[in-house]
Amino acid sequence: MKIERADCERMDAEDPLAHARARFLIPPSVVYLDGNSLGALPAATPARLGQLVEKEWGTDLIRSWNAHDWIALPQRIGARIAPLIGADSDEVIAADSTSINFFKLAAAAMRLNAPRRTIVSERGNFPTDLYVLQGLRDMLGGAIELRVVAPEEILGALDDTVALLALTHIHYKTGTIHDMQVLTQAAHAVGAFTLWDLSHSAGAVELFLDRHEADLAIGCGYKYLNGGPGAPGFLYAARRHQPLLRQPLSGWMGHAAPFDFGDDYRPADGMARTLCGTPAVLAMAALAEGVATFDQIAMSDVRRKSKALGDLMLALLEARCPEAGFEVACPRDAGKRGSQIALRHPKGYEIVQALISRGVIGDFRAPDILRFGVAPLYTRYIDIWSAVEQLAGVIADEDWRRERFRERTAVT
Amino acid sequence: MKIERADCERMDAEDPLAHARARFLIPPSVVYLDGNSLGALPAATPARLGQLVEKEWGTDLIRSWNAHDWIALPQRIGARIAPLIGADSDEVIAADSTSINFFKLAAAAMRLNAPRRTIVSERGNFPTDLYVLQGLRDMLGGAIELRVVAPEEILGALDDTVALLALTHIHYKTGTIHDMQVLTQAAHAVGAFTLWDLSHSAGAVELFLDRHEADLAIGCGYKYLNGGPGAPGFLYAARRHQPLLRQPLSGWMGHAAPFDFGDDYRPADGMARTLCGTPAVLAMAALAEGVATFDQIAMSDVRRKSKALGDLMLALLEARCPEAGFEVACPRDAGKRGSQIALRHPKGYEIVQALISRGVIGDFRAPDILRFGVAPLYTRYIDIWSAVEQLAGVIADEDWRRERFRERTAVT
Repeated sequence: MKIERADCERMDAEDPLAHARARFLIPPSVVYLDGNSLGALPAATPARLGQLVEKEWGTDLIRSWNAHDWIALPQRIGARIAPLIGADSDEVIAADSTSINFFKLAAAAMRLNAPRRTIVSERGNFPTDLYVLQGLRDMLGGAIELRVVAPEEILGALDDTVALLALTHIHYKTGTIHDMQVLTQAAHAVGAFTLWDLSHSAGAVELFLDRHEADLAIGCGYKYLNGGPGAPGFLYAARRHQPLLRQPLSGWMGHAAPFDFGDDYRPADGMARTLCGTPAVLAMAALAEGVATFDQIAMSDVRRKSKALGDLMLALLEARCPEAGFEVACPRDAGKRGSQIALRHPKGYEIVQALISRGVIGDFRAPDILRFGVAPLYTRYIDIWSAVEQLAGVIADEDWRRERFRERTAVT
Repeated sequence: MKIERADCERMDAEDPLAHARARFLIPPSVVYLDGNSLGALPAATPARLGQLVEKEWGTDLIRSWNAHDWIALPQRIGARIAPLIGADSDEVIAADSTSINFFKLAAAAMRLNAPRRTIVSERGNFPTDLYVLQGLRDMLGGAIELRVVAPEEILGALDDTVALLALTHIHYKTGTIHDMQVLTQAAHAVGAFTLWDLSHSAGAVELFLDRHEADLAIGCGYKYLNGGPGAPGFLYAARRHQPLLRQPLSGWMGHAAPFDFGDDYRPADGMARTLCGTPAVLAMAALAEGVATFDQIAMSDVRRKSKALGDLMLALLEARCPEAGFEVACPRDAGKRGSQIALRHPKGYEIVQALISRGVIGDFRAPDILRFGVAPLYTRYIDIWSAVEQLAGVIADEDWRRERFRERTAVT
């Protein structure tokens, strides 16, 4: 059955999340399919930051740490992220960057599960996770074995020497979802803990960290959570692990009594012990507004729409660009696919650039992946229609083909 | 010679830095003497953040990483901090928090100077520095000896087992300055490196990191650099150390080619290898405006005025509150004193609270220290006059004395 533009308009008209787009300021001339890299600007953020800067910082100055409760921003934001990931409010806290948080919890896991010293992860994982594990290993003088295997070898790599299984839940390139429940059970079966990187998951798919008995997790504030460029990340630790959790970035904000100014570190109760330095208040305030775009939104609705948007894009691509040389690099089964469509094309970089010049913003990941993220709070079905129309236009564009030809000529 | 209000007005009229106050938005009803805890709001910051959020994030979206060069913010800001601390532009970079940066460079130093394993620091140092060193030690299974000694014992604690001397250059409570040149030479004489915490120094006093042959340093963006609450910090490594510098928080932004997305970490050249995760763009932009308040300002002028403001405050205190029970807790010699006046008083907390209610904002550090920071870009001589007038008023205030009396009665 051929999908028409009017079908997409009807889907938008019937979309229970359609109202949420008004929570964002999206440039009218743009089809934005890169919320998996940088979430769009929430409509409330500019005014909130203006108030924070001019009133709280400028006028109330140092008193705002208490008067405006800056000091509790990490806990307050964590508590609002918690329901989005299937956790309790005291199991999540916002802080620092995803890379730093990954280091904290990987190091903490190795201590929790000593004397085991093997970490299993995945080849082609988001690089920062592998780099941070390598940094941890090198710092410990090689006292960690990194077992980095192909995705299909993960289960087989788990044995009773493994301390930690550290995986990105949804692959940043292909959008493939790991089965958190199955892998967590397999890890637990050999006595290993799990550390999940939820960068492409939080705010994009339904998550059940508590129900699936995840041990540890971190996630990103600037993708689907709309916290702004380089927003702080978040950390999760199951309540059962918190009393024994010790992480090496033991700065004063993780101290049980930071304003006693004692010489000896004593970890705070609960997730606060994963904090390190002074919270980045401006960035935290923007993250709070980003997370607030999910107020009164059911993640089940987000997920349903995310699947539908992805299915629509794949169907339109096959209808409109059947001969363009694209290879579908993401799962066709929406149940196994995160909130993005990934395609392979040898001229992927050039195609993404040509699309951007036509107002359709996706991104490119070396060597040949085109990524199109769908963010159900603001991506419309009609946006998918427009994106594929433009993509078909790029493919058909004579100038672009000539340019491609010239480049090839130049290289050979 | 009695100092009169008119003398202070004359000093302001003759102050070569008087014009710099217009670079800030200071509430007219406030005498702000807490810039050593949170720098005042630069006048340019609200508009810059508004533009960043609405145009760069909201409209240009993901393209801003290149179009507005977000990606190079750490280097660009570092290059502007460099002249304030006596370093070259490629020796400084902005990133993360001071606590996290301290961890990175302490860990890097232990690797640079292996197999030595002793770190010397100071009792009563700013707690986060000691806590982070303890975290590093514990993570390494006790393979580090922390030798934390009284200030007067530092030189004696240096021997040929010492890998690192890690000190805060200006003490957060007393404002006492360590002699960077003497201590660095002493450390080098036994083969140790130095890691200086410049949190209370950068933007406050003249610094000569290169000339004094400092090895490593970190500093704070939210105090005298006016970068906003929880602003990113900065890191310094002498050029000679950079090629061998390896730090464990080896996230993707410290990679030689982060967008190649390879599986193996390869450190970037120069200071970029001290980066970890994605830069916090909003916080970085505010820090850039904070650092810009020093444009065309000579740190020698800043230092001269800082000393004069401190001397004025001590002189006025002795003239106006000779019997109030204050003990001067900072060096009386301005050459040995950072940009703050510290007093001890058994009722310090109550006095600071009473002062704040009168619009004079200093702060209190347990157990009995009153801190008054002077920030020469915006603190006026007349502010010091007003602060001491109010302090004398607090001391003389019958209500306050009654309240103090009631409290004491309640306690006994």
